[in-house]
Amino acid sequence: MYKIVLLRHGQSEWNAENRFTGWTDVGLTEKGVSEAQRAGNALKEAGFTFDLVYTNKLRRAIKTAWISLEALNLEWIPVVKAWELNERHYGALQGLNKSEMAQKYGEEQVHIWRRSFDVRPPALTSESPMYPGNDPRYADIPKDKLPLTECLEDVMNRVIPYWTQHIAPRITEGKQILVAASGNSLRSLVKYLDNVPNEEIMELNIPTAIPLVYELDEHLVPIKHYYLADEQTLAKSIAEVKNQGKAK
Amino acid sequence: MYKIVLLRHGQSEWNAENRFTGWTDVGLTEKGVSEAQRAGNALKEAGFTFDLVYTNKLRRAIKTAWISLEALNLEWIPVVKAWELNERHYGALQGLNKSEMAQKYGEEQVHIWRRSFDVRPPALTSESPMYPGNDPRYADIPKDKLPLTECLEDVMNRVIPYWTQHIAPRITEGKQILVAASGNSLRSLVKYLDNVPNEEIMELNIPTAIPLVYELDEHLVPIKHYYLADEQTLAKSIAEVKNQGKAK
Repeated sequence: MYKIVLLRHGQSEWNAENRFTGWTDVGLTEKGVSEAQRAGNALKEAGFTFDLVYTNKLRRAIKTAWISLEALNLEWIPVVKAWELNERHYGALQGLNKSEMAQKYGEEQVHIWRRSFDVRPPALTSESPMYPGNDPRYADIPKDKLPLTECLEDVMNRVIPYWTQHIAPRITEGKQILVAASGNSLRSLVKYLDNVPNEEIMELNIPTAIPLVYELDEHLVPIKHYYLADEQTLAKSIAEVKNQGKAK
Repeated sequence: MYKIVLLRHGQSEWNAENRFTGWTDVGLTEKGVSEAQRAGNALKEAGFTFDLVYTNKLRRAIKTAWISLEALNLEWIPVVKAWELNERHYGALQGLNKSEMAQKYGEEQVHIWRRSFDVRPPALTSESPMYPGNDPRYADIPKDKLPLTECLEDVMNRVIPYWTQHIAPRITEGKQILVAASGNSLRSLVKYLDNVPNEEIMELNIPTAIPLVYELDEHLVPIKHYYLADEQTLAKSIAEVKNQGKAK
């Protein structure tokens, strides 16, 4: 039997401002830093240790990984930063306020943009300053793989191959792995692992900075999963994430 | 022409207590954190950017790298953590106070232990709790390569092959590299690059957390080097390092 821990980054500056973030590289807030410390401490108290961390190219996830490693006294383990684990690209919505968009387009439309499986937000153009092809961190990636917008299905199409080719083989080698990434890259991984139907994925929210432990059988099929947090912390955190798309 | 930046970690907890540290994994002090921030800011202001960081397996160097990357907005670049770039192993002196040792054995003996090329401090045994073979971070390294004590020559015998096999080829590929490591791993690299005679290496001190820029020709032979700091900061920092071995 294997275990893997998934960890969504702590609160970012744009989470706090309730803006669509996507691939925009905003930092953690002070609250986000505390959340990451709490996550690291919870892992330590529960006796977890790791051989390897996977994270993405965005500082809010990387910093969450670093802070967790400090709490675990594991600064020395390798940290792999894969663009394939990036947050979903939010296209032309990046930078816009979620509540304002809900007032303008309706809560239902915003909910669809945020949580649907196959509806993409309006796309960027490659002339946009937000176009990933202008960012040196994506310079090694073929231009035709760089998104202008993404739905969850698009995210799965990069996350799952990365899982299969890079992460899964390390798990079955016996490596203990932490994946510190973003809401939608983790949602797509959970969808794959638990075989969540497309029509149910709308309701799946992953709370920020609460370690999500998956126990997997020898074929990496989940046996069970659980969060490392008390019920109250967990419920509060899930509600916060869910309510971001309300018009208020 | 190529450039490489060497950066010794900021003040550690045992620097502050004036204890021999070696491979003991102590953290940075608050001063050390500020020094690392200052180093990162100095690099940013001077227009440096990097593709890749090499550091060692010790959190004081790793944290210095992380803090510098934050200042540079480069959290996303790869950070390679190589045991070969570790501080010199100080053998049975690890944990002991430098001034107390100077009172007991004389300043000259302590100076020899700290700075000589080929005199090793008293060795650990493999039964010691400080023996690196008991530490999971060195589990993949053949036991016969793990030191019980090291002189600078021993450090060179791991740093220079690592430089030649891993770092130098990346430089000539055009990668811009930061090496965030420890006093003696950097001294051994400087000795190699500048071809410093054994008898002169005693007087070579590298200040903490001040970026040391080497400009190299096409064969990676140094053209010149300089520190990114004003003269006063630099002189103060060099004097601090030098005075640690005094009896007081």
